[in-house]
Amino acid sequence: MTPLDLNNIETQYFTFAHPPDELILESKETLGPITLAYETYGELNKNKSNAILVFHALTGDANAAGYHTGAKKPGWWDAMIGPGKAFDTNKYFVICSNVLGSCKGTTGPTSMSPKTGKPFGLSFPVVTIQDMVAAQKCLIDHLGIKKLLSVAGGSMGGLQALKWAVIYPDYVASTIAIATNTRHTAQQIALHEVARQAIMSDPDWQNGDYYGKSIPARGLALSRMIGHITYMSEQSMEEKFGRKLIGKERLGFDFSHDFEVESYLKYRADNFVQRFDANSYLYLSKSLDYFDLAEDADLKTVFSKARCSFLVISFTSDWLYPSYQSKQMVKALKANDLDVSDIEINTNYGHDAFLVEVEGQSKLISHFLDRISKEITYA
Amino acid sequence: MTPLDLNNIETQYFTFAHPPDELILESKETLGPITLAYETYGELNKNKSNAILVFHALTGDANAAGYHTGAKKPGWWDAMIGPGKAFDTNKYFVICSNVLGSCKGTTGPTSMSPKTGKPFGLSFPVVTIQDMVAAQKCLIDHLGIKKLLSVAGGSMGGLQALKWAVIYPDYVASTIAIATNTRHTAQQIALHEVARQAIMSDPDWQNGDYYGKSIPARGLALSRMIGHITYMSEQSMEEKFGRKLIGKERLGFDFSHDFEVESYLKYRADNFVQRFDANSYLYLSKSLDYFDLAEDADLKTVFSKARCSFLVISFTSDWLYPSYQSKQMVKALKANDLDVSDIEINTNYGHDAFLVEVEGQSKLISHFLDRISKEITYA
Repeated sequence: MTPLDLNNIETQYFTFAHPPDELILESKETLGPITLAYETYGELNKNKSNAILVFHALTGDANAAGYHTGAKKPGWWDAMIGPGKAFDTNKYFVICSNVLGSCKGTTGPTSMSPKTGKPFGLSFPVVTIQDMVAAQKCLIDHLGIKKLLSVAGGSMGGLQALKWAVIYPDYVASTIAIATNTRHTAQQIALHEVARQAIMSDPDWQNGDYYGKSIPARGLALSRMIGHITYMSEQSMEEKFGRKLIGKERLGFDFSHDFEVESYLKYRADNFVQRFDANSYLYLSKSLDYFDLAEDADLKTVFSKARCSFLVISFTSDWLYPSYQSKQMVKALKANDLDVSDIEINTNYGHDAFLVEVEGQSKLISHFLDRISKEITYA
Repeated sequence: MTPLDLNNIETQYFTFAHPPDELILESKETLGPITLAYETYGELNKNKSNAILVFHALTGDANAAGYHTGAKKPGWWDAMIGPGKAFDTNKYFVICSNVLGSCKGTTGPTSMSPKTGKPFGLSFPVVTIQDMVAAQKCLIDHLGIKKLLSVAGGSMGGLQALKWAVIYPDYVASTIAIATNTRHTAQQIALHEVARQAIMSDPDWQNGDYYGKSIPARGLALSRMIGHITYMSEQSMEEKFGRKLIGKERLGFDFSHDFEVESYLKYRADNFVQRFDANSYLYLSKSLDYFDLAEDADLKTVFSKARCSFLVISFTSDWLYPSYQSKQMVKALKANDLDVSDIEINTNYGHDAFLVEVEGQSKLISHFLDRISKEITYA
C-alpha cells in the first residue's frame, strides 16, 4: 500500500499517558492512559507542512476516507478527501481521529477502566470539546507536526476546528468551520436533552451498566430518529418522502407504519443501534451542549487569540445550525482583522448539506487550501 | 349564572347515537354511542345566527374560556374569548367541544367499550379529522343551529375548521384558520412518529392496555418534550432560556440537568403526564398525520366546495406549520374567487403564537367577525 492508495485503509492507534501520566480534563478530573483511533490519507511531506486535521461529527469515526479492506462503503467524507478532491491527498496529508468519549476505537465509556477492569460506563468522566482537542494535540505532537496547514470539520467537527484555532493558535495556519456555531443554543440543548432522556428512560439502560446485557436499543433508536429529523430540512423531507405510503394502497387505520418517512426513520434508527453505543451518545451530546467558545467573554475577545485564516461555510436550509450563527462568527472574526472567507450555500439539504453538497464546498475548500499553502510560513 | 358569566363554567355532555345507531367512520368502522364534552360561552340569539364553533389543538379540551368553579387557570383560549374580546361573548355564542379520540370527556380510548365493559385502549377505532367534525355536526344539529357564523381554530383546530368549510359548506358562514395547513407534511409526520414510538416503546404501554396499572409515563413525557420544542421557535427558546444554568454556578459535568431549558422540558412533560392519556396522544397524532384536505385532487378543486369567507393567519417563526403552507392555501382559495383575508404576523413565538399573540389576532378576528355578521344571510 502506498500512502495514496485509499483502497486498503487501516485504522491506527496511538496510546499516550499525558505528563505526568494522565490528561487533566476541563472537569478537573484526570483520565489516562488514552488511546486515539486515527487514520491518515496522503503523504506527510519532508518539512511536515502539508498536514490537515479533519474532525468528524457526533456519531462519526476515524474512517473519513477510503475503504477498509473488504468494506463496501467508504469513509464518511470520502467525497471530499482523496486524489484531486477538496482535501487533495496528492498534495496534503489528511489525519482524522475518533473523538474522546466515542466508541469507535478511541477511549470512551465502552473502554475498560484500568481501575475496575470493566467498561467505564457512567464512571467515564464527562469530556468536553476542549478535552477532545487536547487529546488530538497529543497525536499531532506524536506525529511531529508543528503547524497544521488546516483544521477542518462540519457540525461537531466545526466546534473542534474553532477550539483548535483559539487554544493552539501557533499550530494552526487555517480553520475551515462548516455548518457549525460558537455556542450551543437552547434549542440544540433541548433536542439533545430529549435524546438523552430517551436513552436514560429505557429500562435496559440500567444507569449505563448494560455492557454484556441487553443494550438500551429502544431509547437509542428514538435518539437517532430525532437526530435524523434535525439533519434534514423540512423541504428535503418533503421532496424525499412527502406523504408517500409504504407498501399500501390506502391508509392502514392502525398504528403500524403508513408513510415512507416513518419506515425510513425506523430503518436508520435500527442500523444506528447496531453501530453506536448509547452511553457514548450521552457523552458526546453533552460535550456539544457544554460548548460555548466565548464562555463569559464575548466572541470578539475570544477570537483575538486566533491568528489563522478562516473559511466559514453555512447552508440556507440548515435549521440545526442556522446560518445566522455563522454570520455572527464571521462578524467577530472580522472585528479582529482576521482573514475570513465566508459563504452561505443555497441548498435544500439542511444540516446534512456538509456531507452531501460536495461540488460547491469542494471548489471553495480547494481554492482556500491552495492559497493558504502558498502563504503559509513556518518558524 | 348568566350565560355571560365566565366564572363558573361547567362542561356539558351530549350523547348521541347517529342514525341508525352508530357513526360510520372514515375507516368504515362504526362507533357509538358517542359522548361529546362541550362548553358554551355567551347567549345564543333568537334566530340562532350568532354561533361560533371553536376547535382546540392536539391536547386541548372543551374548556376554551372562563373558569370552572374553583379553578385557578382559565380555559386555553380565554385571552381570545369573552366579553369585549376577539370572540366577543356579548355578541356571539361560542361553542367548544373536546374532539373524538381525546380523553377530556369525549369518547376516546379511555372510554368504556360497550362490548367489553373495559376501556377501549387500542380497540378504539382510528379516527380522523373528518370523523371529529362529523361528531361536532351532530352537536350543532342538536343545538338547532342551521348556520355557524364562524368555525375557528389554530393548529389541529385549523384543520377542523377547514374540514367544516368543505364538507358542510351550507352550515358555515366563515372560517378562521390559524397556524395550520391543508396536509400534514413529511416532517410533521416524522415528528409525530417519534412521539408515538416513544410511547409504544415504553414497556408500561403494554400494547395500550395499561388502564388501572402503571401508565407509560416515560414515553408520554418524551412525546411532550418533543412537542414543546416544536411549539416554540429557535428564537423564543433562545430569548427565554439561552444557556442559563439552573441552580448551579458552573456546569455539573454529569448527566443531571445543567440548563434551565432542560428542567423546563421536564417540568412541562411531568405536568402533561398527569393530565393526558398516552393512547389518546397516539390517536390524535395519527388523525393529524392522516389529514390531507385535497387527497387525490388538488387544493383548488377541494376548495371549490367551500362557499364561506376565510381569514387565514400564520406566523413568521412558526416552523411546525410554516407560513408558506398558509400562502398555498390562500392561493387555492383565491383561485376559487372566495372572499379571503390573510395575514402573516411577525413574531418570535413560533407555533405557540396562535395562543399568545393575542393583540394582533384579536383585532383581525374581531373586525372579520363584525363584517361577517353584517353580511350573513340565512335561508
